[in-house]
Amino acid sequence: MKSYRHELLFEVPGRRDFINITSDVEKCIAESCVKEGLCLVNAMHITASVFINDDEPGLHHDYEQWLEKLAPHEPVSQYRHNGYEDNADAHMKRQVMGREVVVAITDGMLDFGTWEQIFYGEFDGGRKKRVLVKIIGE
Amino acid sequence: MKSYRHELLFEVPGRRDFINITSDVEKCIAESCVKEGLCLVNAMHITASVFINDDEPGLHHDYEQWLEKLAPHEPVSQYRHNGYEDNADAHMKRQVMGREVVVAITDGMLDFGTWEQIFYGEFDGGRKKRVLVKIIGE
Amino acid sequence: MKSYRHELLFEVPGRRDFINITSDVEKCIAESCVKEGLCLVNAMHITASVFINDDEPGLHHDYEQWLEKLAPHEPVSQYRHNGYEDNADAHMKRQVMGREVVVAITDGMLDFGTWEQIFYGEFDGGRKKRVLVKIIGE
Repeated sequence: MKSYRHELLFEVPGRRDFINITSDVEKCIAESCVKEGLCLVNAMHITASVFINDDEPGLHHDYEQWLEKLAPHEPVSQYRHNGYEDNADAHMKRQVMGREVVVAITDGMLDFGTWEQIFYGEFDGGRKKRVLVKIIGE
Repeated sequence: MKSYRHELLFEVPGRRDFINITSDVEKCIAESCVKEGLCLVNAMHITASVFINDDEPGLHHDYEQWLEKLAPHEPVSQYRHNGYEDNADAHMKRQVMGREVVVAITDGMLDFGTWEQIFYGEFDGGRKKRVLVKIIGE
Repeated sequence: MKSYRHELLFEVPGRRDFINITSDVEKCIAESCVKEGLCLVNAMHITASVFINDDEPGLHHDYEQWLEKLAPHEPVSQYRHNGYEDNADAHMKRQVMGREVVVAITDGMLDFGTWEQIFYGEFDGGRKKRVLVKIIGE
């Protein structure tokens, strides 16, 4: 069995953003030399997500609006978590979008449907954050 | 290490449906001859889900109503994604219900609690769609 | 390839609670003797979650309030699932928080970011429940 580990690094200037990391994960799979296996991609922070959906700016705008409706940032005083911080909403948005994805590797490639793309979802930016890529297989 | 790959095919006539795929996944596990391992089951489309819950028609009705409340289909003009399409709500419903499940294989069987059942969740039907089953183990 | 399986047992007296199970999972990883691999941790019940977030009581209070807003317990008659039961809301809360997490094992340790902690989320307590820990790797 082979295993592989790599960290992707992010520093989103604003509070929220969606970043396509599909080609980064593909590079990891190539470097791992794993032909058949599973690849875990997870946010190492609890106010960020890794998820799979469409790379379409209109949809990302809709996600932003929708998540803000489900878990509003303001008023920050509505959340007990917001004593020294103001990011309680980010902990909720991250639960809706998910912490991680597990993707299949087949013939050394990401085994994906036509429109699947992997995204890093930042909900509390302005500082350095990491995503873990862990691969096992043969 | 053994690996196994299979696609399940769907064509839901209406817009939305939940389909129990537990026995299909069990067939895959049997075919794989894997006794100890992990099995990934994921939608290959971004307007569909794979999730684990109860096979109870009342609950599925409740999910349908609840998801429609969290991410309404109408008015379609509320979503910027809906330029040429009308399925933005499906991309949101899929995030709530999830893209994938990872399940354990123990002694060659699905290692499940009493009421766990695997479902395909369609949120934008009327066309052919696929689910990937990928197994690794020994 | 090595594999390992263990069940964690819970009996939450009230209806809902969040329990930190990180050290239990760490014990499983140590017992498995797996140095590089993947660890699946999943609720074996469909009204409970396993998720990763912050061990901060204010946030857990916020989650409780937020989930109750997204999927209210009362009135129980609003859900068709609630014929003989009153736990339809628990099936929804569990979908928002998730059934499972997959975590990486690197150098025999849980490969985690600084604030990541694993929780069992109970949404329909008062009875015995189980969480499965399944590890594969080398």
